[in-house]
Amino acid sequence: MPKIVDHEKQKQLLAKATWKVIQNEGIEGASVRKIADEAGISPGSMRYYFSTQSELLYFSMKLVAEKIRNRITNIPFTGNPFQDALLLLSELVPIDEEKRAEMEVWLVFNIKALTDSSLQELSRNLYIETKEGLSNIIETLMNQENAAPSLDKETEVQILYSLIDGLTFQGIMFPDLVTPQRIEQTLMSHLHSLCTNE
Amino acid sequence: MPKIVDHEKQKQLLAKATWKVIQNEGIEGASVRKIADEAGISPGSMRYYFSTQSELLYFSMKLVAEKIRNRITNIPFTGNPFQDALLLLSELVPIDEEKRAEMEVWLVFNIKALTDSSLQELSRNLYIETKEGLSNIIETLMNQENAAPSLDKETEVQILYSLIDGLTFQGIMFPDLVTPQRIEQTLMSHLHSLCTNE
Repeated sequence: MPKIVDHEKQKQLLAKATWKVIQNEGIEGASVRKIADEAGISPGSMRYYFSTQSELLYFSMKLVAEKIRNRITNIPFTGNPFQDALLLLSELVPIDEEKRAEMEVWLVFNIKALTDSSLQELSRNLYIETKEGLSNIIETLMNQENAAPSLDKETEVQILYSLIDGLTFQGIMFPDLVTPQRIEQTLMSHLHSLCTNE
Repeated sequence: MPKIVDHEKQKQLLAKATWKVIQNEGIEGASVRKIADEAGISPGSMRYYFSTQSELLYFSMKLVAEKIRNRITNIPFTGNPFQDALLLLSELVPIDEEKRAEMEVWLVFNIKALTDSSLQELSRNLYIETKEGLSNIIETLMNQENAAPSLDKETEVQILYSLIDGLTFQGIMFPDLVTPQRIEQTLMSHLHSLCTNE
């Protein structure tokens, strides 16, 4: 079914053009006309792929979530809980250009979701899935012999997830102040504080 | 000079109308026409107060930063480092309706600053000032007798600030999951972890 494959591929190209326009001009610049321009197709033929701008934004946001999920699924885990925790956390923060671009677009879509209820489920689903992943990390670390005493799981998950979101926000806003190196070193220090001997 | 006072007062009313439109329709809905409607004046007379939309957005963002600064300046500090830290942190997170509204608008303006360089200095200035305040908190806590051993000041400031920004982001996005109570309890736990006997 080459036609269906091409159709899906073209939709993905249009989603990527949407990300580009958002990065360059913000969500308020993401008009169908500008996205068509960026993708090199006529605004008229956009309708063949998406019937509304809202549908295009939904698809584009969903594709970012899928990219983030794919990166997490493909982590080469080592079996060492501390190393594996660090590997997973590193996929959730802007420590290279690709992740930075994805996180920035994801952040902008999340803010858009505040006033666009059609996008809210995408935001919420990835939040809940990520929280489950972080909950597993904390549980594994707390079951280690060298876990710091008297940790409360729910609280530590909230602290870790907030730390990640805060580092991501600051890394996107102030990349010269909150550098990839600073982000990694901060996560490492925090993980160390959860283990007495690491 | 009643006329100048009225002029400034009217500009503040227009800034507040801007916040309202942003909360209801996002930054992409914040057109001069809609803001004039919200404020109950004619779009034509907006020009008497702001010559461009860009000027209006700058003023509106600056006023949020000033409100946050004012709240911090008016904290009734107690002299107890742990209590005072909690008082200051509580002013930086969305734990009541007023703070939630301010933080939400501040967040939206920050995202706007990613593609609007005229707003970047406002974002950066408040970031640097807040970081200095948090740096003082950490220093005071580390100088206490009961400070946890082997804390690194720079790292702890980065962790605390990221934690605050992450809690703020999640509290705005998912107020039913990251409630004011959850935010306060998380900050309290984190501060406790910096002190061995609090």
